Amino acid sequence: MSFIAKLTNAIHHNNSLLCIGLDPDPDKMPAGVSVLDFNWAIIDATADLACAYKLNFAFYEALGEEGLSSLKRTREHIPGNVVAIGDAKRGDIGNTAKAYARAIFDYFGFDATTVNPYLGFDSVEPFLQYQDRGVFILCRTSNAGAIDFQSLSVEADGGRRPLFEVVARKAAQWNTNGNIGLVVGATYPDELKAIRENYPDIPLLIPGIGAQGGDLALTVRYGVDRRAERTLINSSRLILYASREKDFAVAARKATSELRDQINTHRASAL
Amino acid sequence: MSFIAKLTNAIHHNNSLLCIGLDPDPDKMPAGVSVLDFNWAIIDATADLACAYKLNFAFYEALGEEGLSSLKRTREHIPGNVVAIGDAKRGDIGNTAKAYARAIFDYFGFDATTVNPYLGFDSVEPFLQYQDRGVFILCRTSNAGAIDFQSLSVEADGGRRPLFEVVARKAAQWNTNGNIGLVVGATYPDELKAIRENYPDIPLLIPGIGAQGGDLALTVRYGVDRRAERTLINSSRLILYASREKDFAVAARKATSELRDQINTHRASAL
Repeated sequence: MSFIAKLTNAIHHNNSLLCIGLDPDPDKMPAGVSVLDFNWAIIDATADLACAYKLNFAFYEALGEEGLSSLKRTREHIPGNVVAIGDAKRGDIGNTAKAYARAIFDYFGFDATTVNPYLGFDSVEPFLQYQDRGVFILCRTSNAGAIDFQSLSVEADGGRRPLFEVVARKAAQWNTNGNIGLVVGATYPDELKAIRENYPDIPLLIPGIGAQGGDLALTVRYGVDRRAERTLINSSRLILYASREKDFAVAARKATSELRDQINTHRASAL
Repeated sequence: MSFIAKLTNAIHHNNSLLCIGLDPDPDKMPAGVSVLDFNWAIIDATADLACAYKLNFAFYEALGEEGLSSLKRTREHIPGNVVAIGDAKRGDIGNTAKAYARAIFDYFGFDATTVNPYLGFDSVEPFLQYQDRGVFILCRTSNAGAIDFQSLSVEADGGRRPLFEVVARKAAQWNTNGNIGLVVGATYPDELKAIRENYPDIPLLIPGIGAQGGDLALTVRYGVDRRAERTLINSSRLILYASREKDFAVAARKATSELRDQINTHRASAL
């Protein structure tokens, strides 16, 4: 099955555009609960309400070998009808990118990953060759530093446009296997709008609502694709740390359900 | 001790600008030798001839949990008077970059790392806060795809210049802790020359000689800093796979010694 088919199925199956970011931070988790137990409980409590889980490798790597083991076992616990994204943001020369792709797709078995475009085509291509996996290229990220380079005006293709738009154009050219998506942050609604207007059907992974401050109504209005079946709106801290007590999984389910419903309400009014 | 002091000491101690890339590829290694045994043997055979070892995380991650264990134990085996670089090329938003910095500097204990600038200042800053560690920012990489974005003409600071030069200028502005270096590939000598002329004292990590085709004489002439004590010229495959037989460590020592001497000869004629 293609990545887009898997994503679309997951979105329809759970009637949800919500991607849950499984970024465990022991300082914010309930006391005495291991990362693995925490993640499994969150997945068990929310797997019928989300279209995807996104695991950011940093939070696992910071915990050393035990963290990497938790990453692998968390991924294995994600049900087959929900998308599992390995958010690794890798970017290296071709020979090395191949090794990263093996780690993310073969060893960990993720359905999709995120990649950094700064090194250009040969750094992305080894990921694209996994034709049944999704490759979300960082385009306009959600953080303050995104303006340092991504927004600079660039001369390319006979015109001038911000670097992130040049990245989006290149991504569209590279998309011969139909497995490319873009990462565009919710914290820059105008940029999100511009990207979605130019690429109405490309999968978008949208971080930045909640703790990072992105406006949910604008994010849905501007970010969702024509058929509302290729868009992932990510939330992490709002859900994972809805409660720091023993009821964290129940609280996470409640927060997930509310957020999914809010997204669906905004989606209905946007159509 | 500052990172620059550690680097300079290592270069003087072994009279070497050579950084050995420990990128183990089981398909190219002698049969029946584990990654860990291979790396340890290479280090034991070359530690008096190199100023640094650079471990690219991809080659370890591709081997799963055992690979990560080999990464840690290889790093531990690098003598204290030689620089240990964790070549991870991470780039993520501030909160997440902090977790990556913990993994690379605290858990693995590397003296320096490489970072990707695409996400801007807050993605680099958590690394810079480790004031005794080096942070090599990707500027002009050695691969073919480097031209896709890094060479585009950008409007910034009231002028127009290639993106990689804008990255170098930003890096110089961010360098308040004096621990920033740049990655500039040997495969683009003109760009290397331009960067070195503008930043005569900044540490440069230069990959791309050998298997990637960079010219050694030009690389040394254009890349070395004024005092020839803040420049690392990386070689990996030429050294690691000098022999695929049982004599691989002896062959690696010979290749390392020859390459160090060639670099020193070019350096002498460049002064």
